[in-house]
Amino acid sequence: MLLHLKDLLIGPALPTQATAHKELNKIRALAAFSPDALSSIAYANQEIYLGLVVAGTAGLRYAWPIGLTIAGLLIIVAISYYQTIHGYPSGGGSYIVARANLGTLPGLIAAAALLIDYVLNAAVSLTAGVAALASAFPMLWPYRIVLSLALLLLITVINLRGLQETGTVMAVPVYLFLGTYLSMLAYGAVKLWLEGPGPAALAPAPPPVLEPLTLVLLLHAFATGCTAMTGIEAISNGVPAFKPPKSDNAGRTLVIMALLMGALFVGSIGLTQFFGVVAAPDETILSALARRLLGNGAPYLVIQFSTLLVLTVAANTSFADFPRVGAILAGDDFLPRQLRGLGDRLVFTNGIILLALSTAALILVFSGETHSLIPLFAIGAFLAFTLSQSGMVVHWFREKGPGWELKAFFNGAGALATGTTLVIVAISKFASGAWITVLVIPIFVLIFDRVRRHYKQVKQQLSLHGLPPSLRPVSPARAVIPISGVHRGIVNAVLFAQSISPNVTAVYVEIEPGAGARVKDEWNEWWPDVPLVVVPSPYRSLVGPLLEYLDATDAEHNDGQLAVVVLPEFVTTKWWQNLLHNQTAILIKAALLYGRRRAGAERLVVDVPYHLRT
Amino acid sequence: MLLHLKDLLIGPALPTQATAHKELNKIRALAAFSPDALSSIAYANQEIYLGLVVAGTAGLRYAWPIGLTIAGLLIIVAISYYQTIHGYPSGGGSYIVARANLGTLPGLIAAAALLIDYVLNAAVSLTAGVAALASAFPMLWPYRIVLSLALLLLITVINLRGLQETGTVMAVPVYLFLGTYLSMLAYGAVKLWLEGPGPAALAPAPPPVLEPLTLVLLLHAFATGCTAMTGIEAISNGVPAFKPPKSDNAGRTLVIMALLMGALFVGSIGLTQFFGVVAAPDETILSALARRLLGNGAPYLVIQFSTLLVLTVAANTSFADFPRVGAILAGDDFLPRQLRGLGDRLVFTNGIILLALSTAALILVFSGETHSLIPLFAIGAFLAFTLSQSGMVVHWFREKGPGWELKAFFNGAGALATGTTLVIVAISKFASGAWITVLVIPIFVLIFDRVRRHYKQVKQQLSLHGLPPSLRPVSPARAVIPISGVHRGIVNAVLFAQSISPNVTAVYVEIEPGAGARVKDEWNEWWPDVPLVVVPSPYRSLVGPLLEYLDATDAEHNDGQLAVVVLPEFVTTKWWQNLLHNQTAILIKAALLYGRRRAGAERLVVDVPYHLRT
Repeated sequence: MLLHLKDLLIGPALPTQATAHKELNKIRALAAFSPDALSSIAYANQEIYLGLVVAGTAGLRYAWPIGLTIAGLLIIVAISYYQTIHGYPSGGGSYIVARANLGTLPGLIAAAALLIDYVLNAAVSLTAGVAALASAFPMLWPYRIVLSLALLLLITVINLRGLQETGTVMAVPVYLFLGTYLSMLAYGAVKLWLEGPGPAALAPAPPPVLEPLTLVLLLHAFATGCTAMTGIEAISNGVPAFKPPKSDNAGRTLVIMALLMGALFVGSIGLTQFFGVVAAPDETILSALARRLLGNGAPYLVIQFSTLLVLTVAANTSFADFPRVGAILAGDDFLPRQLRGLGDRLVFTNGIILLALSTAALILVFSGETHSLIPLFAIGAFLAFTLSQSGMVVHWFREKGPGWELKAFFNGAGALATGTTLVIVAISKFASGAWITVLVIPIFVLIFDRVRRHYKQVKQQLSLHGLPPSLRPVSPARAVIPISGVHRGIVNAVLFAQSISPNVTAVYVEIEPGAGARVKDEWNEWWPDVPLVVVPSPYRSLVGPLLEYLDATDAEHNDGQLAVVVLPEFVTTKWWQNLLHNQTAILIKAALLYGRRRAGAERLVVDVPYHLRT
Repeated sequence: MLLHLKDLLIGPALPTQATAHKELNKIRALAAFSPDALSSIAYANQEIYLGLVVAGTAGLRYAWPIGLTIAGLLIIVAISYYQTIHGYPSGGGSYIVARANLGTLPGLIAAAALLIDYVLNAAVSLTAGVAALASAFPMLWPYRIVLSLALLLLITVINLRGLQETGTVMAVPVYLFLGTYLSMLAYGAVKLWLEGPGPAALAPAPPPVLEPLTLVLLLHAFATGCTAMTGIEAISNGVPAFKPPKSDNAGRTLVIMALLMGALFVGSIGLTQFFGVVAAPDETILSALARRLLGNGAPYLVIQFSTLLVLTVAANTSFADFPRVGAILAGDDFLPRQLRGLGDRLVFTNGIILLALSTAALILVFSGETHSLIPLFAIGAFLAFTLSQSGMVVHWFREKGPGWELKAFFNGAGALATGTTLVIVAISKFASGAWITVLVIPIFVLIFDRVRRHYKQVKQQLSLHGLPPSLRPVSPARAVIPISGVHRGIVNAVLFAQSISPNVTAVYVEIEPGAGARVKDEWNEWWPDVPLVVVPSPYRSLVGPLLEYLDATDAEHNDGQLAVVVLPEFVTTKWWQNLLHNQTAILIKAALLYGRRRAGAERLVVDVPYHLRT
C-alpha cells in the first residue's frame, strides 16, 4: 500500500545507467541559474521599504541612493564572480574555492554558510512568493504559512521524482517574469517621463514617523537590501553544465544576468520612489507599485502571479544545490554518508528530505514572515561571498598567469565590499536574528569535525592491518537457548544449536514462581539429553537474569569464548498480532547487541524464526 | 539517566514475594470503595440543573421530584447489589456475573461497558473536581483542561508507584468530604426550617426560558441525573477484601454507603430547590449552593476543596479497577497478555498507562467539559448494571435456595429499573454523545473475539502434538555472508560461518558500478578458499538483490534446506554514531525475518557483532 503511494507520487525506480548529462545553451542556462538571483528583488525591495518607512516620507526618500549603492556593489561582485568562472572552469562553489585556497576551516565555514543559505533561500523565496499572491488576494493573507508549506510540499515531491525536464519547464516562469516585469518597468518609465512624478494625492496618507532618520537606520535598510544580490554565485558553481566553450558561455550568461538584476532592481526601486508609492500592511511594496502602474485588472494579476512563479522556481534551486553540496561534504566524510546515496529516482533523496524538513521548520518558527527570515539569510550569503572571493585573491597570488594583479585586485575589491557588508549586516541585524546564523555556523563546523573524526576512527578500527595472515575457524564452545516454554517454536532452535555445538543448554527465566518445574517436566519429555536451567527472576524481569546467567557461565568456563545465544522467535503474519505478544526476542537481541559494549567480547546471536501460518 | 528518573518517580523494583493481602475493616472499606459513589452527586446535581435551567424557573421546580425518583431507583439498585454480594462472596463484578449466568457474549458486552465506564469515571471525576476548584477561583476556569491533565498525571504516577497505603491515605478525603458536606446540609436544613425558603431577591436574576418545558426535557434531566448512582457496584466487586464474615460486612457497608449517597443527593438537591439557587456560567450548582449557605469565606473554600479531593480519589478508583479487569480479560485471552504482567512495583503497569492515555485523550477531545462526557458515561454504567442484575436473576433461578423467588424478584426489579433507565439514556442522549459508547462497545467485543481467536490459533500452531518423538539435528547445508567490504568487522563472521558449514559463500551487492572488482581483489588476498559472489544492483537497492540471490541459490541446491545467513554487524559506542552509518544489517535482518512470511521455510540469521571501541 505504502509502496503504491510512493510509486504514484515519486515514480518507479530508475536504473543507475539512466544518469544523464545534458549541456545547456545560454538561453536554458540563464533560466536554470538565474531565478534565485532575479527574484531577489522581490524581498530586497520590500526590506528597503520596511527599513525606511518607519522614518516616514523623509526616510523613503533614501531608497533611491541606497538602491544605487547596492547596484554598485552588484557590479563589483559580478566582476569578481566572472573571474571565478574563468579560474575554476570545473565549478567553483564557495566551499571548493575557500577550501582549496584558504584551508579546511574556512572551507567548512563556507560550507556551513552555504547549507544555511540554501535552506533560507527556500524559506524566504516561498514566503515572499506567497506574500506576492496574498497581496493580490487579501483574503489569503492569514493563510500564508499553510500556503508556503503547501508549495514546499509540491516542490519536494517534484524534486523527489527527479527533474528530467528542468531546463524547459523552468524556463517558462523565468522568461514570463522577465517579460512582464521589464515591460511594466518600461511602461512606468515612459509614464514617469510623460506625466512627471505622481501627485501626492493619489497615494494614501503619508506614513507616520515612528523613528528618527539616523545613519543606523539607513545602514539597516542597506544591510537587508543587499539580499538583492543573493543567487549571483549560482553560475560559478555550474560552469560544467554549459556548452563549450564553457567558461566563455558561462561568463557571458553571468554578464547578462547581472545586467537584468540591475535593471529590475534599480528600475523598480526608482519607480517606487518617484511615484511616491506606499504599501498597506497586508501588501508588498512591489504589489503596491504594480497596482499604482497597472490598476487592479488582469495585467496586475499577471505580474503578481509571475512573481509567485519565479520565486517558487528560485526556492527550487535550493533543492538542486543543497543536496549536491551535502553529497560533496558527505563524500569528504564531513556529513553522514547517507547524504551521498542516490535514491530510486537518481536524486539525493536524503538531502532533499533534510532540506524540506529544515525549510518547513523555518517557515513555522518564523510564522511564514519573510521579513523575520532576512537577517539570518543575509549573514549566510555574504559570509559565503566573502570567503569565496578571498579565496580567489589567494588563488591568483598562487597561480600568477597573465594580468593576475588586476584579477587579484578585482577579487580583492569584491572580498572587501562583501566583507564590509557582512560586518554591517552582522552588527546592525544581530539582535533581530543574525545571531542565530552566527551561532549555528560554528555548531555546523563542529559537527563536520566530529563526523569526520568518527569515520576516521572507524576506518582505523576496521583495518585488517595486523591480523595474522591465516585465521583458523574454531567451533563454538557452547550454545545457550533461552526458551519461553516447550512448544513447536523452539524445535528448530534446539536442532540448530545441537548441530553447531556439543554443549547445548536451554534456559528458562521463571517469572511466575512455580512455573519452572512445570516447564522442566515437559522439556525432559522431549529433550532428556539437553540440560534445562531454570533461572529465578524475583523482580519479574526477563532480560536481566538471562544476561547474568550468560555472564556467570562464561566466567565459569573461562575458555576465551562466549556462548552463542540461539534465540527462538516466532513471527506473526499480521502487524497487529505483534501487539498481542511480549516481543521478548527483540528485547533480548537488543540487550545482547547494543546493551553492553565490550570490544573484543562479541557474543553471537542466532535468530531462529518460526513463522505462524495465520 | 532515564532509569534514574524512573527510580525517582516510580521507585525501585519490588520482589514478587512482597505481594500483600490486607483485609479491611468496615471504616477502611467504606473509604476504599465509596469515593466514586459518594462523589457522583457532584456531577449528577450539575447535570439535573443544566438539564432543567434551559426551561427557566419553571423547569428548575422539577429538580426535587426528579431527585426523589432517582433516590427511589437507588434503593432498588442497592437492594439488588446487596444480593449480589451474598450470591458472589468471591467478588461479583458485572463481567463475572454476566458471563457466568448469561453467557460469553453478554459477559464481553459487560466487560466492554465496564472498561469504558472506568475511563469515563476517571475523566468525569477529574474534570468535575477541577470545576469545583475553578468555581472557587474563577481565574482558573480557562485552565481546566491543563489542571485536569496535571491531576491525571499525579494520580498515574502515584498508581505506578503502587498504593501501599491505600486505606489510610484515601480515608482522609472521604471522611473530610462526608463530614463537611453533611454538616453543611444539616446547617442548610436548620436554616430552611428557621427562615423558610429564601426571598427571590437574594438570588441573581431568574434564568431566561430558552426551551419549553416538555416531557422530553424532563427525561433528559432524569437520564443524566442517574449518574448519581455510578460507583454503587464497587463493593460487590471487592467482597474478598473485607474481614470475615466477608459477605455480611460487605453488605452492611453497602447499606451505609447507599444511605449516605441518598442523604447527600436528596439533601443537596432539596436545598438547591428550596433556596432557589441559580449558578453563573463559570460555577457549578453545588458551589452556588455552598456559597448561598456559607458565604465566600473559609467554610466555603473547605467544601470546594474537599469536593476536589473526593473526586480525585474517585478518579483513583478507576486506576484500581481498570487494570484489574484488564488483567482478568487478558487472563481469559480476550486482551493482550501484556496487561497481565506485574510491573516493577507489583502493579499492572500496562493497564495503568493505557487508562491514563485513554483518560487524557477523552479530556482533550471533550475540552475538559464534564457535561459533554456525561452521556457517554451513563450508557456504560447502566449497561453494566442491567447485565449484572439480569445475570443475578438467572443465578437465582439456577441456584434456587431459601427464599430465591424474593431474591429473583428484587434483582429483576433492579434489572428492569436500570434497563429502563438505559433505554431512556440511550434514546434521549443518543445525539449528544451516547452514540459513541453505543458504537465503541461492539467494537470492543469484536476486538476481544479477534484477540482470543489469535491466541487460540497460536496455541494450536505451537503444539508439539504430531512431531516425531526423536528429532535428529542436521548440519546446516550452506552459509552465506553478506559483506559491505573487506574489513575487520567481517572476520568473526567468516570464521563462524566456516565453523558451522563446509559450504560458505560471501556476497557483495554492488551498488556503485565497478566497486565489486575492487572488493573481490581484496577478498581473495584474505580468503582465497571462500568464493565471493558479486551481485549487481542496477536500482541501487541492497536488500532486494540479496534476497533474490538467496532465493535463487536455495532453488538451485534444492536440498530442502535454506542457507543460513551470517550477518556481520558493527555496533557503535554512542547512539548518535548510528546516524552516520547505513544500518544495512538491521534492514537485512528485518527483511529476512519479517519481510517474507512463508511457513515451513525458516531462514536462520546469525548476528555477528563487532563492537567499535570509540
